[in-house]
Amino acid sequence: MSVPTLKQAPIQEHTRILGLGAYRPDVIVTNEDVCQWIDSSDEWIRQRTGIVTRHRAKADVSVIDMAEGAAREAMEKAGIEASELGAVIVSTVTHPYATPSAAASLADRLGATPAPAFDISAACAGYCYGIAQGDALVRSGTAKYVLVVGAEKLSDVIDNRERTISFLLGDGAGAVVIGPSETPGIAPSVWGSDGSKWDAIGMTRSMLDVRDLGLAARQSDSTGDLALLEEAQELYPTLRQDGQTVFRWAVWEMAKVAQQALEAAGVEAEDLVAFIPHQANMRIIDEMVKKLKLPETVTVARDIADAGNTSAASIPLATHRLLQENPELSGGLALQIGFGAGLVFGAQVVVLP
Amino acid sequence: MSVPTLKQAPIQEHTRILGLGAYRPDVIVTNEDVCQWIDSSDEWIRQRTGIVTRHRAKADVSVIDMAEGAAREAMEKAGIEASELGAVIVSTVTHPYATPSAAASLADRLGATPAPAFDISAACAGYCYGIAQGDALVRSGTAKYVLVVGAEKLSDVIDNRERTISFLLGDGAGAVVIGPSETPGIAPSVWGSDGSKWDAIGMTRSMLDVRDLGLAARQSDSTGDLALLEEAQELYPTLRQDGQTVFRWAVWEMAKVAQQALEAAGVEAEDLVAFIPHQANMRIIDEMVKKLKLPETVTVARDIADAGNTSAASIPLATHRLLQENPELSGGLALQIGFGAGLVFGAQVVVLP
Ligand SMILES: CC(C)(COP(=O)(O)OP(=O)(O)OC[C@H]1O[C@@H](n2cnc3c(N)ncnc32)[C@H](O)[C@@H]1OP(=O)(O)O)[C@@H](O)C(=O)NCCC(=O)NCCS
Ligand SMILES: CC(C)(COP(=O)(O)OP(=O)(O)OC[C@H]1O[C@@H](n2cnc3c(N)ncnc32)[C@H](O)[C@@H]1OP(=O)(O)O)[C@@H](O)C(=O)NCCC(=O)NCCS
Repeated sequence: MSVPTLKQAPIQEHTRILGLGAYRPDVIVTNEDVCQWIDSSDEWIRQRTGIVTRHRAKADVSVIDMAEGAAREAMEKAGIEASELGAVIVSTVTHPYATPSAAASLADRLGATPAPAFDISAACAGYCYGIAQGDALVRSGTAKYVLVVGAEKLSDVIDNRERTISFLLGDGAGAVVIGPSETPGIAPSVWGSDGSKWDAIGMTRSMLDVRDLGLAARQSDSTGDLALLEEAQELYPTLRQDGQTVFRWAVWEMAKVAQQALEAAGVEAEDLVAFIPHQANMRIIDEMVKKLKLPETVTVARDIADAGNTSAASIPLATHRLLQENPELSGGLALQIGFGAGLVFGAQVVVLP
Repeated sequence: MSVPTLKQAPIQEHTRILGLGAYRPDVIVTNEDVCQWIDSSDEWIRQRTGIVTRHRAKADVSVIDMAEGAAREAMEKAGIEASELGAVIVSTVTHPYATPSAAASLADRLGATPAPAFDISAACAGYCYGIAQGDALVRSGTAKYVLVVGAEKLSDVIDNRERTISFLLGDGAGAVVIGPSETPGIAPSVWGSDGSKWDAIGMTRSMLDVRDLGLAARQSDSTGDLALLEEAQELYPTLRQDGQTVFRWAVWEMAKVAQQALEAAGVEAEDLVAFIPHQANMRIIDEMVKKLKLPETVTVARDIADAGNTSAASIPLATHRLLQENPELSGGLALQIGFGAGLVFGAQVVVLP
């Protein structure tokens, strides 16, 4: 069979982050607030996690609303119009519909239609996963400009009475526009997964349990099984974790991944101006800084004290604060690393916008 | 500030689909079966949709199980080991956990750890979206081999009594391995979204409604509001659609997108050996064939008669059947197009594995 040769999109040699935006919701939740629900204390939480407050969104503010806020700022800073976007990627695990995606609605709101739009599920590694994909889409010539958003309303999927994770979490969104560059602005990603620890962080139950409990409860109406009825009313899935498993994995394995990302970029710790890890726990951040032997000249993002853990939004939010407080770091190299439920991880060195 | 130059991954000029796998679950649901639940008939369903049966999975077969079945065949056909995979992408809207992703578990089961793994949400365009990303990841040098899976257990998110969509849907999974090629095997994707039609297909309610109804019902225990209790037991979100809106959009807009995909590939309808549209409705397929003026020499995939609409799995499943029934088409050009909730769409010309 003689097959005509398919055309190929022209390659784009280099990419960089052109602009960054953030959305921080305005309800401030203190450690005292969360201690109404769990047996804990302001002191314990500060010492063991470094968290002082977390921001949470009001009931009428959705994942898409927050994504929009962050995206508009990123596009403005990048000087890119919605009509120029070649893809809209939203990294989230808290969009409350199985389908359609948050991204399809976001693209419409921004006026980016008909840009392709999709959500990705990679938990707290979601932003770095999005950067890896956005970079690949631009370099392969598939898209010219890509909007990558990390947006989470974790307050929607927590049980306040739950002591393994709920007190750590906040809401928010961060966004960047990735586009062509004359010099390399995004180094190769070191990204991966370890699904053998699939159970270490996740939901208390599956959506199918919700269905089955509901069905059983409906039948119990006739049999009068009150326990089942009560259970069915409490069946909303929320987050839980085995904190120590995640903590140990993060401290031991993530320092190695961060080191590999430096090697993949061909740079040394001394070349960095900033280190921007996922904001999961201040002690994890401190351990990574130690293991990577980061010199004093590297500014470390510690947004967690104010924002808590915002999953896919944590790295762009932390970067936003870092650049607000240290505008002179713009143009320098930052090492960013995300990790979370899956377990999954992603790291890369980028030129700060 | 003097910034060291970041290394970049070496570009891979061309890609192709190296191997394809399918998983068809073994419960056969006939039109008579679905007509137990809705006011319809075998004749109406055949005439208006072309569907004769759909395959559905038993309760103990999950999205991940089906994805694994399809993935193992794709890897074997491609001659690629799990350890060679540079990314695992699962396109699905029916994985019943907000987090972790189905892909993280799949990668672990396959032995692909530590490959990056993530799910994407792009509904019935999900497979073509996955191909666009897999192609970009390989061409940009981000990954050497990428596993792209479309896997759906739609029977988990339907209400059998619902007449706008439930009777159309089946379960299944299809998978491909994308890798380097000496000649172009995947043409540029024409992909996009129209979020102004976000409401045309989707869930009956949000997960937050589940939570709020559950909360209200719990409070009603004391106030004795039985209606609320009953409602709370029926709150599992299921799919619904405005069929005519989707139908018209598919017939009018998708033929244009398919035409653009031919142009992006630099080929004519005459160059194709196969047309493999998303299997949503036989009448949509027939209309597209007419509008594209496809010659008789182009084999059209009509897996829908047997499989129903399997969302992200429909195109790889249909391709699998096509190649089983017409092995001589291997190596020829196929035009594939997916479209669905979002609304979103994606199309590309590929060399058949
Ligand atoms: C969750 C986490 C803060 C718990 O801290 P920890 O130091 O590991 O705590 P441990 O589970 O070892 O428990 C130590 C003690 O603190 C107590 N404790 C646990 N959670 C507590 C809380 N929220 N408040 C007060 N005390 C708590 C335990 O009961 C235990 O008490 P005991 O010694 O009397 O038995 C920590 O494990 C963590 O940050 N893990 C990783 C989190 C993460 O990154 N997750 C998301 C990734 S995206
Ligand atoms: C859902 C779909 C099959 C309905 O077919 P349709 O021809 O558009 O049907 P309409 O909604 O126009 O209704 C026509 C008649 O059929 C009836 N009807 C609708 N659904 C029916 C069913 N399942 N069984 C029997 N009759 C049905 C209507 O009540 C109406 O009757 P009336 O003329 O007496 O009022 C069709 O719209 C469709 O395939 N849409 C796109 C689906 C799709 O691709 N969705 C997913 C994208 S991924």
